[in-house]
Amino acid sequence: MSLIEDLNWRHAVKAYDPSKKVSEEDLNTILEAARLAPTSSGLQPFRIIVVENQELKEKMVKGALNPEVMRDSSHVLVFAAWDSYSNEKIDQVYDLHTDVRDLPRGRFNSYTDKIKSIYGAQTPDEHFTHTARQTYISLGMALAQAAELKIDSTPAEGFSNQVVDEALGLKDLGLKSVSLLYLGYRDEEKDWMSSMKKVRIPMDEFTIRK
Amino acid sequence: MSLIEDLNWRHAVKAYDPSKKVSEEDLNTILEAARLAPTSSGLQPFRIIVVENQELKEKMVKGALNPEVMRDSSHVLVFAAWDSYSNEKIDQVYDLHTDVRDLPRGRFNSYTDKIKSIYGAQTPDEHFTHTARQTYISLGMALAQAAELKIDSTPAEGFSNQVVDEALGLKDLGLKSVSLLYLGYRDEEKDWMSSMKKVRIPMDEFTIRK
Repeated sequence: MSLIEDLNWRHAVKAYDPSKKVSEEDLNTILEAARLAPTSSGLQPFRIIVVENQELKEKMVKGALNPEVMRDSSHVLVFAAWDSYSNEKIDQVYDLHTDVRDLPRGRFNSYTDKIKSIYGAQTPDEHFTHTARQTYISLGMALAQAAELKIDSTPAEGFSNQVVDEALGLKDLGLKSVSLLYLGYRDEEKDWMSSMKKVRIPMDEFTIRK
Repeated sequence: MSLIEDLNWRHAVKAYDPSKKVSEEDLNTILEAARLAPTSSGLQPFRIIVVENQELKEKMVKGALNPEVMRDSSHVLVFAAWDSYSNEKIDQVYDLHTDVRDLPRGRFNSYTDKIKSIYGAQTPDEHFTHTARQTYISLGMALAQAAELKIDSTPAEGFSNQVVDEALGLKDLGLKSVSLLYLGYRDEEKDWMSSMKKVRIPMDEFTIRK
């Protein structure tokens, strides 16, 4: 199947069959696609928390707009962005880049000095605006990968960031939750979205040719 | 090829061959993947401006961090988000949803009333924070689709939003530029990134299992 076919196949599932679990192998493939997503300056300024434990899920369910969907899903991926950039974090990533590429550390100093000076002039709020945006590229790749594997998914922003951040202890990790991705297998009868046609804005309205 | 192979194949190309153009058919496939991306409440609160015209590209090049990359690319996709939500925009999208699905208009009123009240309590700045995030899911799908077609691409945030918004008259359309996606075919010799290993944070650091 092509990506276009996969994207036409998928939809935001509204009811999961709680008895069906995503396999460890498929889960790892979805996480690998998310990890391979490009990000600004290659910094990957976020982490994915994988929640399978039902008790922990129950804690996060509080404050969720669609509690049943989260509860019955197989896994919840929590996309959580860095609360801020720092010189140390930038150096850590670029030390990895040079090490993997067998280059001397500091090889990219002229570039990292530039991004350090840009982020150094910004507030943590501005940082988070930027780090949060990056998570959505990765969310897109995870969604596409789940569809390729014919695993159902629901991207979700309708939840309490405070509840999720506290349940997962994200503050101590320098992270803030941005979005959730529920994974699992649909309950065909209860998932009222399954029978609905996919709707998208027509191409000639969605795109403007210049 | 699988999505994982496609994502491993791609990288942010640093030099394009200006003589090679992306075909209309391939361009349409990339735009279709971008259009199929899911968005919050299905609102698709952004548009993609497709710039092929070289004179217009030159106007946007001013203020670009990597002017040559933009200049030599085949096409520039400008992801531009709604500057704000409004009840009218929400109704327009949901009228389309009901029409396409042969449902009576107003069928989703209880849902749209809820999102209207949420956005009604927010400022335009908060709206744009949210609409801008949605564009990145679509950017991700466009990147993945370009890779599937073995078309090179470079996602870019390093440009002057003011210059691009003015060059394209985005303000009058209620849009603000968020990111660019250059498409084309790499110049093998000049693209120094081609020979570099892809680097990503190791999986056990990128993900946290709970």
